[in-house]
Amino acid sequence: MRGVIMHAPGDVRVEDRDDPTILEPTDAIVRLTASCICGSDLWPYRGAEPVDHAPMGHEYVGVVTEIGADVKNVKVGDFVVGSFWSSDNTCEICQAGYQSYCVHRTLMGTLGTQAEFARIPLADGTLVATPGQPDAELIPSLLAASDVLGTGWFAAVAAEAGPGKTVAVVGDGAVGLLGILAARELGAERIIAMSRHADRQALAREFGATDIVEERGEEGVARIKELTGGLGAHSVIEAVGTQEAMHQAIRATRAGGHVGFVGVSHDVSLDGLELFGAGIHLHGGAAPVRQYLPQLIQLIWDRRIDPGKVFDLTLPLEDAAEGYKAMDARRATKVLLTV
Amino acid sequence: MRGVIMHAPGDVRVEDRDDPTILEPTDAIVRLTASCICGSDLWPYRGAEPVDHAPMGHEYVGVVTEIGADVKNVKVGDFVVGSFWSSDNTCEICQAGYQSYCVHRTLMGTLGTQAEFARIPLADGTLVATPGQPDAELIPSLLAASDVLGTGWFAAVAAEAGPGKTVAVVGDGAVGLLGILAARELGAERIIAMSRHADRQALAREFGATDIVEERGEEGVARIKELTGGLGAHSVIEAVGTQEAMHQAIRATRAGGHVGFVGVSHDVSLDGLELFGAGIHLHGGAAPVRQYLPQLIQLIWDRRIDPGKVFDLTLPLEDAAEGYKAMDARRATKVLLTV
Repeated sequence: MRGVIMHAPGDVRVEDRDDPTILEPTDAIVRLTASCICGSDLWPYRGAEPVDHAPMGHEYVGVVTEIGADVKNVKVGDFVVGSFWSSDNTCEICQAGYQSYCVHRTLMGTLGTQAEFARIPLADGTLVATPGQPDAELIPSLLAASDVLGTGWFAAVAAEAGPGKTVAVVGDGAVGLLGILAARELGAERIIAMSRHADRQALAREFGATDIVEERGEEGVARIKELTGGLGAHSVIEAVGTQEAMHQAIRATRAGGHVGFVGVSHDVSLDGLELFGAGIHLHGGAAPVRQYLPQLIQLIWDRRIDPGKVFDLTLPLEDAAEGYKAMDARRATKVLLTV
Repeated sequence: MRGVIMHAPGDVRVEDRDDPTILEPTDAIVRLTASCICGSDLWPYRGAEPVDHAPMGHEYVGVVTEIGADVKNVKVGDFVVGSFWSSDNTCEICQAGYQSYCVHRTLMGTLGTQAEFARIPLADGTLVATPGQPDAELIPSLLAASDVLGTGWFAAVAAEAGPGKTVAVVGDGAVGLLGILAARELGAERIIAMSRHADRQALAREFGATDIVEERGEEGVARIKELTGGLGAHSVIEAVGTQEAMHQAIRATRAGGHVGFVGVSHDVSLDGLELFGAGIHLHGGAAPVRQYLPQLIQLIWDRRIDPGKVFDLTLPLEDAAEGYKAMDARRATKVLLTV
C-alpha cells in the first residue's frame, strides 16, 4: 500500500509500505476513506521533535476489511471512526472516561494512518461504527471527530464550558476552532476567540464565537479581563502547547475558573507559586476522544454540527508533502487527505 | 496590647503593639480567645521567605468588642471564627465560593492575630458567629476551622475525595492530617496517609486513615501504585509546598484523577509535558475557608469532628517564641496560643 513516511524534519514522502495484517485477535484492518494532517504533526516537521523515517498520521475514518477472532463490536463492511489512542474501553481508567490513558493503549501515530490501510489494535474498544454508510459530504466531519473535534470537545469539557459561562479560547488552529464549537454546544453564554487571522476569525464566529480578541500574551490577558469585569474568563481553552499560550490561558482565567489544555506541551514550565496564587483548576492532556465518539458521530449524522469546515485544503494522499507545506506556512488550517 | 513580632528569621518576640481601632465602617475588632502558629509561619522563620519586624498570625477565634457603622451580620459579644483572608462575600468570586480570592480581600497575616486584639476588615463577609458562647473544650477545634481544618477541607474537596475513592495525602502536618479527616467526612473509601512519624501516624488513623505509607518520593509513588492496582489514587492531597511533595502528589494520581494542593509553593516548577502526560486535574491555592465555615462550625458544635486534636502544644501568647521553636524542631505539630 501507499503511505506517508517522514524521513526527517521537512522531508515528507509517500512511499510503498507493507499492507498491515492482523497481529492480535483483537485487531481490525481498516481501508481508509480519508486521513488528515494534525497540528501536532508539525512539531517533528519543524524539527521541534525528533523524527526518523516515521510513518505518520493518527486520524482516520474508513471501512473495516478484516477483523481478528476476538472482535465483536465491529464487522467487515462497517464504516468506522476511531480515536488516536487505541483503548480496551473496559479497564478502570477507560470506564472512568479516560480511554486515552487506557492501561493497554497504543498511540495510532506509531502505526501511521496517512496511508491506504491501517491496523487498529483493540478494535472493540477503539472503533465506533456509524449508523450506516455515510454520505460523502459527512466524511470530513466524521474524520474531524477522530481527533480535532474530540480534542476540542474535551478541552471545552475540561474547561467546564457551559450555561452562564464566558469561555476564552487560546489558539485558532483546528482544535481551538472546534473548542469554540464544543463550548457553544455545551451552552456557553459568551465565547471569546483569540485570533488575528481574518479567515479563522470568520470560522470562529461561524462556530459560535461572540467576541474576537487579536491581542496576545499579557495584552491579550488584559483584554480578556477588560471584557469580563476585571475578573477573567470562567473557562479557558488552551490549544497551542507553548509557554506563552499556557501563561495566556492561566492568567486569563478567574480564580476558581477552569483551564482545559490540549496543546501538546513543548518546553512549558509552570511556576508553582503562580498556580497557587491563581486559584484555578487545570486539566488537560491527551483527549479521551473515544468517550465522546458516539455522541459526536450522532451530532454529525443528524447534521447538527459541521466540524468538517476546519478542512480548508483537500489533497490526494499522494500529495501529502504539499499538505504539510501548506499547514507549516499557515496557508491551510487543516488538510484532508483523500485515499 | 501584646502581640507577636517576627524581627527576622528565627527571632520571634512578644511586644507591646498599638490596640487596633476601627478604620473602615466595615471593620470589627475582636478580642482574641486563642490564636496559633501556622506551618506557613515557618517559611519566614526559617528564612525561606523575607521577614522584617512583621506582626504574625492569621488564625483566630474570639469575641467581637466593637463594630463599624456598616457591620450587620455580627454584633458586640458574638463569639466568631474568621478566615485568614478577609472577604466581602458578595462579589462574583465570593459568590462562586472562592472567598480567598475576593476582589476586596486582605490577608489577615498582615494584621497579625497572634495578639490580644485584631481588626477584622469586611467583618460581615469574613466572620461567622458560633451558635452561642462555646465551651472551653471547643475552642481548639473552632480555632482549627479558621485555617488548618478549612484548608484541609478545601484540599479534600479540590481532590474530589468522596464515596468509592482512594485518597492519598502527602504531608503529615496539621493540614494534611485534617485533609484526612475531611476526606473521611466526604465519604472516601480508603485514605492513605504518607507519614513516617509514629505520633502523626496515630492521629492520621484516628482521623480516618486506613493505610500508612512511610516511603517518600519515587518510592512513595511506587507504594501508592502498588496499593491501587498499579493505577494510582483517585484523589491526592498535597499539603507541603515543595517540589518533591508536588511531584509525589502528581505522580501518585491516576489519569483522570484529582490533585488538591494547598501547601504554599516554594520553588516548585511543573513540567508542562509531564502534566500533559499525566492527564490529571490540578486545583489548589489559598483555601476559601469562609465557604466552609458555617458547615465546619456546625460539625464542631455538634461534636461530630474534633479537629482541635492537631494542637499538641498549648502555650500562653507570651511564650510564642517557644512555640515557634517547637514547631520548627518538629517537637510540636501545631501550637495553640492562649490569649
